[in-house]
Order: sequence, then structure tokens, then C-alpha cells
Amino acid sequence: MKKTASIIIVCPDRQGIVAAVTTFLFGHGANVSALEQHIEDGFFFMRVEWELENFDLDDENKFADKFASVRKQFNMEISLEFSGNKKRVGLFCSKEAHCLVDLLGRCLIGELNIEIPYVISNFEDCRKIVEKHDIPFFFVAAEKSSNTHEVPSSEDLRPTSTASGASSFQHEEKCLEIIKKFPSDVIGLARYMKVLSPAFIKDAGQKIINVHHSFLPSFVGAKPYDEAYERGVKIIGATAHYVTAELDQGPIIEQRVKVIRHSHNIENLKLIGRECEKEVFAFALKKQIENKLAIFKKRTIVFE
Amino acid sequence: MKKTASIIIVCPDRQGIVAAVTTFLFGHGANVSALEQHIEDGFFFMRVEWELENFDLDDENKFADKFASVRKQFNMEISLEFSGNKKRVGLFCSKEAHCLVDLLGRCLIGELNIEIPYVISNFEDCRKIVEKHDIPFFFVAAEKSSNTHEVPSSEDLRPTSTASGASSFQHEEKCLEIIKKFPSDVIGLARYMKVLSPAFIKDAGQKIINVHHSFLPSFVGAKPYDEAYERGVKIIGATAHYVTAELDQGPIIEQRVKVIRHSHNIENLKLIGRECEKEVFAFALKKQIENKLAIFKKRTIVFE
Amino acid sequence: MKKTASIIIVCPDRQGIVAAVTTFLFGHGANVSALEQHIEDGFFFMRVEWELENFDLDDENKFADKFASVRKQFNMEISLEFSGNKKRVGLFCSKEAHCLVDLLGRCLIGELNIEIPYVISNFEDCRKIVEKHDIPFFFVAAEKSSNTHEVPSSEDLRPTSTASGASSFQHEEKCLEIIKKFPSDVIGLARYMKVLSPAFIKDAGQKIINVHHSFLPSFVGAKPYDEAYERGVKIIGATAHYVTAELDQGPIIEQRVKVIRHSHNIENLKLIGRECEKEVFAFALKKQIENKLAIFKKRTIVFE
Amino acid sequence: MKKTASIIIVCPDRQGIVAAVTTFLFGHGANVSALEQHIEDGFFFMRVEWELENFDLDDENKFADKFASVRKQFNMEISLEFSGNKKRVGLFCSKEAHCLVDLLGRCLIGELNIEIPYVISNFEDCRKIVEKHDIPFFFVAAEKSSNTHEVPSSEDLRPTSTASGASSFQHEEKCLEIIKKFPSDVIGLARYMKVLSPAFIKDAGQKIINVHHSFLPSFVGAKPYDEAYERGVKIIGATAHYVTAELDQGPIIEQRVKVIRHSHNIENLKLIGRECEKEVFAFALKKQIENKLAIFKKRTIVFE
Repeated sequence: MKKTASIIIVCPDRQGIVAAVTTFLFGHGANVSALEQHIEDGFFFMRVEWELENFDLDDENKFADKFASVRKQFNMEISLEFSGNKKRVGLFCSKEAHCLVDLLGRCLIGELNIEIPYVISNFEDCRKIVEKHDIPFFFVAAEKSSNTHEVPSSEDLRPTSTASGASSFQHEEKCLEIIKKFPSDVIGLARYMKVLSPAFIKDAGQKIINVHHSFLPSFVGAKPYDEAYERGVKIIGATAHYVTAELDQGPIIEQRVKVIRHSHNIENLKLIGRECEKEVFAFALKKQIENKLAIFKKRTIVFE
Repeated sequence: MKKTASIIIVCPDRQGIVAAVTTFLFGHGANVSALEQHIEDGFFFMRVEWELENFDLDDENKFADKFASVRKQFNMEISLEFSGNKKRVGLFCSKEAHCLVDLLGRCLIGELNIEIPYVISNFEDCRKIVEKHDIPFFFVAAEKSSNTHEVPSSEDLRPTSTASGASSFQHEEKCLEIIKKFPSDVIGLARYMKVLSPAFIKDAGQKIINVHHSFLPSFVGAKPYDEAYERGVKIIGATAHYVTAELDQGPIIEQRVKVIRHSHNIENLKLIGRECEKEVFAFALKKQIENKLAIFKKRTIVFE
Repeated sequence: MKKTASIIIVCPDRQGIVAAVTTFLFGHGANVSALEQHIEDGFFFMRVEWELENFDLDDENKFADKFASVRKQFNMEISLEFSGNKKRVGLFCSKEAHCLVDLLGRCLIGELNIEIPYVISNFEDCRKIVEKHDIPFFFVAAEKSSNTHEVPSSEDLRPTSTASGASSFQHEEKCLEIIKKFPSDVIGLARYMKVLSPAFIKDAGQKIINVHHSFLPSFVGAKPYDEAYERGVKIIGATAHYVTAELDQGPIIEQRVKVIRHSHNIENLKLIGRECEKEVFAFALKKQIENKLAIFKKRTIVFE
Repeated sequence: MKKTASIIIVCPDRQGIVAAVTTFLFGHGANVSALEQHIEDGFFFMRVEWELENFDLDDENKFADKFASVRKQFNMEISLEFSGNKKRVGLFCSKEAHCLVDLLGRCLIGELNIEIPYVISNFEDCRKIVEKHDIPFFFVAAEKSSNTHEVPSSEDLRPTSTASGASSFQHEEKCLEIIKKFPSDVIGLARYMKVLSPAFIKDAGQKIINVHHSFLPSFVGAKPYDEAYERGVKIIGATAHYVTAELDQGPIIEQRVKVIRHSHNIENLKLIGRECEKEVFAFALKKQIENKLAIFKKRTIVFE
């Protein structure tokens, strides 16, 4: 594998941006291996990847320093990445282990080149699986209270109500302690059935990616397969999205769907849907650690 | 093509239903060519198709008469169909012609064996296309008012508000006159952008099938592609469903989806989505005229 | 979960089969929970599933005994299954572990209710993964010879040539010994890259299910992703099929595909294709152990 | 719609190409609206689209003239396109009209902005449909001979044998006369069931796009649905590809597939497959006229 670097650039559109960036890279010896660019709502989006072999700015700081003037000129927001740094993905889970087991399997066979510094759960169920992989597992108790995703009442699922629960506060405090002690670059919610408060999302200080078990925006909340069955839809699916303060409303990273039939019951839907859940979750985390995701308004740009 | 008959049976589940029905058919000389059966929520669903060649009950009345006792015994709801009767599909459209043109094309090449007794539209745009196919086209004016699907305000889209508009009432009265004069067995809304009142739905006296340009229940209302773009979904789709008094809430017959990319704008979405719209619309009408659809609660059973 | 039994029936089509079977079942107290039936090329195919609660033939032998006359009357081939017997799936693998790891994961979380009596491999690579799951792992050496699936020469891939290799014979003999000692009901080839001889297939005495990494019949042989890339296809996929004496020609059980883009290289194709491989493999084994597969000519019937 | 121009560039990869091209465009006042670039097998591929508003090279000749030095420097192959020139698509068909009717429908509603100068057919069946759209229809008789796609013998389907038939030669001569008289930019074979000779392909002097009714490379030849049924595949599909001297071997532009079930017979497969055929055909022609296709080795690059 050749060593590469990549940059994602988002800025107001105007003439000459591509020329300026590629001339800069060329001037420092970069060989561009991939470039995607498009314009949307008056904004300019580009991701460039180049080989580091003859590139004379050999770390992120040097690059940022030299590139500062171009960046300033076009008012760019950038996301920079030099390959070779193994990313750390912290995981949260509850009782259902399929996304977790799938992700651990992908690590095991080298498909995902990440470190998993911790798995946090509000249940003990997955401990054995996690520890088999020599990953620290932390059970952090949470009262089965108003802020649990499993409570059917839709009112109770609102983050505003969840933040108020004292036990929820304590739960999140303990999670934050663990994250502090075992730092991660991104958090993946592997079917974590507890709503996180806006305060936690902020304090975690990193991107949080959730997998929701429906093709959003259909069936927000805790029981999408039950609702899908009631509503009689002919497809089901799953969505990987960034977690924001609004439940199930964050920018969507990936969606996959499967066709179902009238003869499928709710249990069938859950089994079929899992295939989608596992795929979107692994896909989204992979794109995240490869510096291929940008957020614009309520949407994501997913570079190839 | 061999002549066949089919029956759909829905009744509370208990022992012996399949045996009773197939014994009855066998006793009258039927050769069963296909049978699908399943159980759902304590109810029994079956569709049987048989060849008419040696069958001694050679029309629907005779069958109904002889079958009455079995039917009564199990408290069955049935839908009976003897092949050979060409079905009449009335069409409604507005400005966008792709579903209409697609359906007419399928008739032209013999893929759909139906008669189209009329096309009703609240715009003149499609007249030429329809008349080219020697099908009566009726322009029925409708004020661009609160009951038009094109009005963006979501409040105005509610059927309750639409029923009150006097001009809407007149519009629907004229449509009903046409339907009375040119009878149809089922009505297809080929992207008809006007909400029909509960009164009309009742008075039409037949099933009405609509195509909605999203994967319901996501994006009800008039502008699903705009909303899909804003929300940043990674799939778009279309839904064929029965029309009920509640807007976009009727039982879903078919759904198809397509993958989209961040670089697609709203116009792209519309073009891509059309493929789904055309397919689900034609699929649903075909299933309807083949006696392969049953409604149970808010869901449809779609037999093979 | 209610206890159930199921029967698959294949026989020449004639009148009265459904009636005869369902009357038989009804007469013994069965409550039919699902029934699928269709006719194809003059043959009759049916699968019936019923609850055992009030059924008076409570094991397979009693059933076979009483059902013999019906069976004889219609010249039926049947496959009978009483739920509750945990099926044993033996696994073969080589170096690539994704199908194996995926399957073990599904067992771990209870999605597949099977026993795995052994994993046999011609490489040591997967030992650690398998033994972590407390499953016996057997390395059975095989010369990297003419009968290895990894050899690019298409001529060498023919079973006729592979059967002649002495070391291959020895390899298979050892595998058969293991199978004898640790009996299995079905064998799954989890990306086992060695062609099995017709003799082995016969002597194994059970169904063997393979996953091939292309949408067959495209790209038979050992390097389908390389060939798919060369040929410039826009979809890739995987196929689960029964193993027969002819390489990659057995009846297809399931196929799944994914869309690819021109910018994807061979490595990308392999990664994307794996999702299909894992799914079709698990799907096929699940259908097999649920008594939902029948073979007719070169095709499979896959009941719901 | 803003006026735009686009260029596709293919050349051996080396440093500085992107910078050179975008600096050139920027220097002439171009505002780049989309850019896709990637590297494959040591070659560089790029498509750039820019707005013509302030661009000072306002036609293809001026551009080619000024760009010549850049082109030469990097040894580029280019495909240049200034929007505004309506493309002419000539069509060939036989008996089955679904792709033809679908394409005419797309033109009718403005989805495809093309002119159709002629439809050529070896059967009279589609005359009425074509003439309804005021398009010249030419019946060019062809003996139902060895070069007809409908002949089941696979040997007869080889182009080498087809070129020898005298009547085939005469048929193609007449077709060429029509093409000369009613010039087209690209030819679309809308389910034209006759193999074209290498001589014709050369003499036509333009790209020819065919739709094949299978997911190539599976099921080349005239009866793919029959073969798909025999083989028992679980998916069917269609492929749009460039026509080359080798039957069904040209670079693939697009492929779509559908899931089928064991209960589907060959007629069902044909009906389901048509949806794929229509879509890939329209898709491929649209990409072609938008200057979004490049051929590299046996593959196509399909830009967004």
C-alpha cells in the first residue's frame, strides 16, 4: 500500500479553486491519485488524495502551515488526513449484538484497520463476546427509565425529557470518564438503545455515528420494525447517521434496504433488517476513518 | 393461454380450511395450478388458481352459489375472478405524463391487457398524447386552490380542508359523471396532483390506486423529492397504494427504490425517481386486475 | 416458539393432490400454518408446515408410515422435518475467513440455531478463530497442486483432472474420516478454495453447499473478481449453490448482487462482494436446515 | 439551464495534469461546475464540466486550437462537447417494441432531448407506433437466415458466419444508405435481433449501443431468458453495451437486475426483465449524448 494523504475542502464557490489547490499540490511534488469535486447550492466540495512519495510536506502540521494562505483566500473548511495513523473507534452497545459481532469480525479479518479502545454497554449481555476479543468492556448501569430507547411511549423518547433524568446524567458521566481514559477518534453506536443527551454529544468531543433500524425518515423511535409491519411497507432498511441533539435527525451517511413480503412477520423483518444494519454501520465507520465524509447543512457528502 | 379462475379467501384461522376448499374444487373437476396460503394475526389467507377446462362451475354465479356453504362455514371474505373478462382501468392525470405514457405504452405492446375507458385531467397538457391512443380525454377544470396537491402549505393538503372547497366539489361531481358514463373497474391516479375527497372516494364505488413519489411513510405530501434532497437521504423511491380518506395513508401495494448520490440535485432525483413511479404504478394495476391483491387491516397481501 | 413439522412434496402433477394431502393432515389434527404450492413443467411442488400441538403422528417414523399410501398414490418424493432437532453443519474453509467468521457470529447471537461439529481447512490460518468458539478445527494438508482452486489455469480446475492427484485423494480421505467421526447433516464450504472430487461428493453422503464469489453462471473458476474487473461489469455478486460433480454448475440456491463503479479496483470489488458472499452463504444454510429447499432438474425451489 | 461545455480526458498518468487543465480553463474564464478524476492501471481519467458564461473560447474549434499544446504535452485523448447541439439518435428494432416505445415516450415528455432521424426494422410490426410519432420508419427486409439473432443454434450466431450471407450484406447496405441520408450521431439497437457484421459496424462510422437481455457475460446469444430459466438463476437483468465485432462482448455501459422466484416461468422472466432492458437502454443513450462515457480497454468509464 502506498502512503497517501487526503484533504476535503468545502468553501463558497468561485472561480479558480481547483486550479489553486492542484497547483499547490503539484508544486510540492504531489501525485494526485483521486479527485472528486462538485458544486451544490453555491458551495464548492472537493476531496483530493495524493501519494506521499515525493511530497515535500510530510506531516499534517507542515501541510496546514503552507496551505494556510490558499485556505484563507477561498475561506475553506478543510479536513486533512495523512494515512498510517490507525484510528480508534469506541463502541456503545446494549443487548442486541449483531452489529457489534459483525464489526469485531471485520476487525478480526483485517477488513477494518481500527483499534477499539473500549466497548461500553448498559447491559452485561455482550461482555463475553467483547472480552473474547481482548477489548475492555465496561458495563455502565442505567435505570430503565424515561430516556431508554426501549420505552414505547414516543413522548419519553425526546432528548429534552431524557436529559432531566438524574440516573441518565450519572450514566453519561461515567461513560465520559471512560472515553477520557481510553481515548477514541470516533464513537460508533452499535444498536445502543439509549438516547444520548445533547450535553453528552457535546462533551464527547468527537463524531458519533449511530445505526437506526429503518430507512429514515420513516419510523423514527424505538420500534421501527413493529411500525413497518403495521404500516405494511414492502421494503425495510437501515440508516447510518451522525448523532445530533435531535433524535434520529442527524445527517444520513448511508442507507440500505431489502424487499420484504406480506408473509413476513415482525421477527422475519428484524432478521432481514439486520443485514442492512450491519452493512450501513460498517460502511459508515469505514468512510469516517478514511476521511471521506463531509457534512453540509443536514446532508453528508460521501466521497468514493 | 389456458382459461383459469382464481379466488382469494380471507377468514379467521381454524383447522381444515385448506382441505375444505381444495376438496370442493377437486370435486368439481378443478386442476389447481397455484396455491398460496399463510396465516397472520390469527387470520387465514389463501389464493387458489385453477384451470377451467374440466371445471363444472363455469361462471362466477354458479361458483358463488355452490361455494356458499363452505364460505359460510368458515366466515370467509372472498374475491372471485374468472379469466377472460378484460378489465377497464380509468385514469386520472395532471401535468406530468411519465406514468400515463408508460402505461399507454404497456397497453400498446400487449403487456397489460386492459381497456382504458377515459383519462380525466385537471390540465390540458396530456390531451394530445391520450387522443393519439384513441382514448377519450376529459379536461375537468379545477381552481388552483386549497385542495391542489401542488400547493406547498402542508395544512392545505389535508382532505378535511379540501372537501370544503366549492370548486373542488364541482370538479369531483364532473369526474363522477364521466365515470358513470364510461364505467371502469378500477381507477389509477397516474400522478394526479389533486387530493380526492372522502366523498368522492366513496362515490366512485371502486378501488382507486395512487402512485406516490416517495417510499412512504417518508415524505407524504406534494414535494417528496424536495424534502428527500433537504433531508439528505441516500435512497429515493415510489409507492403504489390504495387511496383512502387519509392522504397517502392507504394500504401499500408496492414500493421500489433507487440509490442516489450526494452529487444528485433535485432534478436528478425526479428523473431517477420516475423509474420507480412507473414501475410501481404498472405493477399495482396489473396485480389488481389479476385478482392478486387483498387488504387486511392497513396492509395488502400481494399474491405471486 | 410453537413446535411444527414440515413436508416438501414433489410429484407429477394431477388433480387432487392438495386435497389429498390437506385432508390427510386435517384428519390427524394438524393445523396448517403455511402452504406454498405451484406447478412447473408438469410437476407439482408443495411445502406444508403445520403445528404439532394436536397432531397425532408425533414423530417422523409414524408420519412416514401413515402417509405411505398417499405418497404412493401420487408417486411423491418427500422431504420431511419435525422441528426441534438441532441440525449439524460441518464447515470447510481455506484462508479467507469472512464467511466463516460471519457464520460463527450468527451462531453466537442465536440467529442460526445449529451445531458446528467441525471446521476442516487446508490452511492453518483460521485455527485461532475457530478454536475461540470451542469448535474442533482440523488442518488437513493439501499439496498446492492441480486441484487447488487458486491455480489460475482453467484446465487444471476441471474435476476430472483433480480426481487424479494422489495427494488430493489423500486429502479427501482424511476429510471423510473426520466427517465420519464428527457427523454432520450438511456441509458448508465457507470459501473453500479446493475443488472436491465427484467421489468425495458422493461419499460425504449429505448435501454440500458452496458459496461462489460471482453471480453465476458468469465467472466460474477461481478468480471471478479479477475477471469481473477485466470485463468491466457494473454489478458483482455471489451465489450459494449445491455442489455437484461439475464445478460451479450445481443448482443455485441464492444470489445477491451489488452495484459497482468504474473507479472501483479489484480490491474494492472483493470487499464489496464479500457482503454478498456472507449473506448468500448464511441464507442458503438457513433454508437448508429449515427444510425449505427442493431440487428439480438443475434448479432449486426455495420456499418462503 | 446554464450553457456548459465538457471534456473527457484520458492519458498516461503523470504529475500535474489536473493543475495544467484547470489552470488552462481558469485562464480562459471558465467556472468549473463538476470534475471527476481517477487513476486506473497507470492511466489518468478526468471529466470536467464548466459554465460557458464568461468563457472566452466559445466553440469547439477555438477550444481545440488553444488546448492543443496541453493535449500534446500529456498525450491526451479527449472528447469535447459544447451543450446546445441536439443529438441525433438513430434506432434499429425488430418485433419486440418495449424498448422502442419506452424511448419514444421519454422523448415525448422531454426527458430525453434528442432527435430520432429514423427507425430501421427488419419487420413491419413497429411501423404504426413509429409513424404515430412522425418519425420515418424503414422496413429493410432480411432473410430469416443464419445471421438472425432468433436462430437458436449458437454456431450460427457468430459474426463470422453472418457476414457471409448475401442477403445480410444487402440488408446492411440498405441500412447504410438510410443512415447516410438521415445522419445520426449514435445508433441505438432497441432489441434489434440481428447480428451486425464487423463491416457494418465500421462503416456506420458512429457509436452503436445495444441492449442485451441478460446480465452479461452470462447468457450471451439469442435466448437468455430461456437459458436463465434452465440454469435456475435467482436474478435476471439487462446490459447496455457498445457494439463491437465480437457478439455481446463490447464494453458494458450499464447493468440492472431484478430478483426472481422459483415460481416464475419464462414468460414472467421476460416481463420482469423488460423493466431492466428499458432502463439500461435509455440510461446508456442519455450518458452517451451527455458526453459522459469513455472506453478504456474493454471497460467503460461512466461519469456522473
